[in-house]
Amino acid sequence: MKSLKEMINPLSTSFISQCKTLVGADNVIFDPERLRVYECDALAALRALPLMVVLPETVEQVQSLLRLCHQHNVPIVARGAGTGLAGGALPVVNGIVLGLSKMHHILKIDSHNRTAQVQPGVRNLAISEAAKPYGLYYAPDPSSQIACTIGGNIAENSGGVHCLKYGLTVHNVLQIKLVTIEGELLTLGGNGLDASGYDLLAIAIGSEGLLGIVVEATVRLLPIQPCTQVLLAAFNSIEQAGNAVAAIIAGRLVPAGLELMDNAAIRVTDAFVHANYPLDAEAILLCELDGLSEQVEADVAKATAILQANGAVEIRTAKDEKERKLFWAGRKAAFPAVGRISADYYCMDGTIPRKHLAKVLTQINQYANDLGLKVVNVFHAGDGNLHPLILYDASQPGEYERAEQLGGQILELCVAVGGSITGEHGVGVEKLNQMCVQFSTAELQQFERLKTAFDSKNLLNPGKVIPSLHRCAEFGQMHIHNGQLPFPELERF
Amino acid sequence: MKSLKEMINPLSTSFISQCKTLVGADNVIFDPERLRVYECDALAALRALPLMVVLPETVEQVQSLLRLCHQHNVPIVARGAGTGLAGGALPVVNGIVLGLSKMHHILKIDSHNRTAQVQPGVRNLAISEAAKPYGLYYAPDPSSQIACTIGGNIAENSGGVHCLKYGLTVHNVLQIKLVTIEGELLTLGGNGLDASGYDLLAIAIGSEGLLGIVVEATVRLLPIQPCTQVLLAAFNSIEQAGNAVAAIIAGRLVPAGLELMDNAAIRVTDAFVHANYPLDAEAILLCELDGLSEQVEADVAKATAILQANGAVEIRTAKDEKERKLFWAGRKAAFPAVGRISADYYCMDGTIPRKHLAKVLTQINQYANDLGLKVVNVFHAGDGNLHPLILYDASQPGEYERAEQLGGQILELCVAVGGSITGEHGVGVEKLNQMCVQFSTAELQQFERLKTAFDSKNLLNPGKVIPSLHRCAEFGQMHIHNGQLPFPELERF
Repeated sequence: MKSLKEMINPLSTSFISQCKTLVGADNVIFDPERLRVYECDALAALRALPLMVVLPETVEQVQSLLRLCHQHNVPIVARGAGTGLAGGALPVVNGIVLGLSKMHHILKIDSHNRTAQVQPGVRNLAISEAAKPYGLYYAPDPSSQIACTIGGNIAENSGGVHCLKYGLTVHNVLQIKLVTIEGELLTLGGNGLDASGYDLLAIAIGSEGLLGIVVEATVRLLPIQPCTQVLLAAFNSIEQAGNAVAAIIAGRLVPAGLELMDNAAIRVTDAFVHANYPLDAEAILLCELDGLSEQVEADVAKATAILQANGAVEIRTAKDEKERKLFWAGRKAAFPAVGRISADYYCMDGTIPRKHLAKVLTQINQYANDLGLKVVNVFHAGDGNLHPLILYDASQPGEYERAEQLGGQILELCVAVGGSITGEHGVGVEKLNQMCVQFSTAELQQFERLKTAFDSKNLLNPGKVIPSLHRCAEFGQMHIHNGQLPFPELERF
Repeated sequence: MKSLKEMINPLSTSFISQCKTLVGADNVIFDPERLRVYECDALAALRALPLMVVLPETVEQVQSLLRLCHQHNVPIVARGAGTGLAGGALPVVNGIVLGLSKMHHILKIDSHNRTAQVQPGVRNLAISEAAKPYGLYYAPDPSSQIACTIGGNIAENSGGVHCLKYGLTVHNVLQIKLVTIEGELLTLGGNGLDASGYDLLAIAIGSEGLLGIVVEATVRLLPIQPCTQVLLAAFNSIEQAGNAVAAIIAGRLVPAGLELMDNAAIRVTDAFVHANYPLDAEAILLCELDGLSEQVEADVAKATAILQANGAVEIRTAKDEKERKLFWAGRKAAFPAVGRISADYYCMDGTIPRKHLAKVLTQINQYANDLGLKVVNVFHAGDGNLHPLILYDASQPGEYERAEQLGGQILELCVAVGGSITGEHGVGVEKLNQMCVQFSTAELQQFERLKTAFDSKNLLNPGKVIPSLHRCAEFGQMHIHNGQLPFPELERF
């Protein structure tokens, strides 16, 4: 029979005391004030207090903890630095949070094989810092790279400005060690290009903590490029800028980064960091090219010609490293800059075919107008990855709800034109409804079966990423995979 | 009650007649003479006659056929061009072969997005031929590219000489349409870098026909490089050549291809194609560099310096396209050249960390000597992917068995030094025993659960890739994942 205490807190005293024995009492958090640190990730609009936070320090502790949770049917939400934007690390109220911040050691930099072997709590930027003496770096660079951890990057398959050329996390991780809910330690992937058996490495990357807990990763390091140059091009219309992006890609250039900012973004960031952006431009493109200096020189000439041919009214080339950093300053400060002019903002993340850039941006602004909201657009144009920042004020009744509605509309628009509801932030809880739009019933059922193959009790990050068919029925949304059933208002696409 | 006829052929008359109705009688093969074409793939030492071969022409036919097989519990082996080297398309005697050769249309070349949308039976090289007018090509280039199909490439996650720089099939396929055993059509992946939900695309690629049937693929096309150059370097020892490979990679060059041939391979291929190779060299390296001409020039200079510093006794640079092709001629003709001097040969495929190249090759030759066999080594040195060709004569009693034994020893050696039992050929039936060596019980169980999540009746290519735990117990091999438990004879590694 359950004790009274167990009826109040569903964690049994036996479970709690075993956790304390496993990781030490100092690494178990109960105090509500300290728990509050863990109540949300960077999707701060959604919050929930976990029953307990556990901070293991070794692989063996993680194995034992998961075995214990499995035995006691306790749900677990893994957490890195909590910088995720889709609520993937939002706690569940009947479960615990497994914080990986104390597993933060770089185990090995192997310059010979150009790899780094790291624990999950190592910060993204710390890998590049440790590799720098060898002339190497880790390529994926989320905006949060100073804080976010490699474990979180793997969970969300994070990207960044440079993933156009260098790929997402999945393209830069060679091997992970994953602890299953039953406490088994699996080694997935390897140092070679190919591995035998099903590609469990790829399926674990981006699985948002639903399949297992990453306790170690071996990542690929790249040589630091000898030369980098940035072009800033201004346009009188978003459409021209969008076409220039398509032309650059079609022109067989592979920029290290290719970013677009609309007029609202130009003004708000320039006011903050004084990047000397052309304030009257409807859009600017930042195009970074890297490689050997001769290669960069040739690429700059080619990109300049393409930008001119596509109507750029002004093209600047950074004259030195200082100016290159200034060109990027506005782009990189976009989030805090928006924070200065709006009480709250909501950063969306969807991907569309590049050719639809201009039309989709126009439609997003139309949706925003209809809801009385404002959107600032800064995004990875080169790979069609949009990041509309929806401005709202949570203190105004109904504004948050309208922001959420607009976010949903934007994602569904991405699907309707043949795109995806994520670019690099993951689904988390934020995009559950839009998963119903993106995928068919058969596809969602296959996801479910896969989850069961890893976690039959549904204890790992339950309720995230894969919506139940019941939820989809309630959401009442038709499946419009790859634009086969476009919305009526999208007939012009 | 089963009719007498059904007792002889387990396919029911109702099943057969429904198949004929679905795809037309002309597309159903029963005649033993015509069935014989399908009795093996390029691992010709293993043969089995299927009960029937069906050749669908449309996606809908594949869906209906799988639904029918699911209903009647009929095992299915999918087949592309039958060029696989690990027996992945070996028929099962109680099942049918689903040949995809009639689904061979290129549906779309999209130069704007640099993609090709193709049916599974399209030949690898046909994609590049169709893309050539746009200045584009499809990068993965298995030796069999003139014949092998993209469906088979996806099933085996095929590589090729250029995958060092451009990746395996998994790095070059953006989207597939997969029919499940229940006849559902799933769309996996998309045109963007990221996709929401679990990465079913990656798990389907390389799953060797065990999870579903690929009926369409969208692949990435790359710009044809403006300039290509090849260096040929000769060495007095395998060890020096191996060290040169490691130094080139550590020197931050990314050659398009980096191939090693040992003395046996040099002599046998030169005698066949007269490539003018240095016959006394213990090893030659072929190092291909591509890009903008200035980049290639700089890379050639850098590679030359590294090769010299690592003891190359002769370095040749191809003076024109004709000589470049001649440099490659021996490497590309290695298989038929070996066929001229040996009644039979068995091509192995394993991957090792580059730093162990020399030691592993020495050990392979030792194993071969002990078994009275000869091995010719040609391989993708840049990514540590070995292809020892074991020479034997099947007409001599016991020779095939010894060749198989040597193959197993080589694969287990790869695992012992931290490598993998596949580089690009897949597991098929050939490497089932070595899967027991590569993976732990927990890992194999996870593979099994994953299979069940896609194909709970185990009808898709049954008996391939993932060994049963029972088989592993019989094989009696210890799990030596990542060299944690090296063989006694490997103590010096």
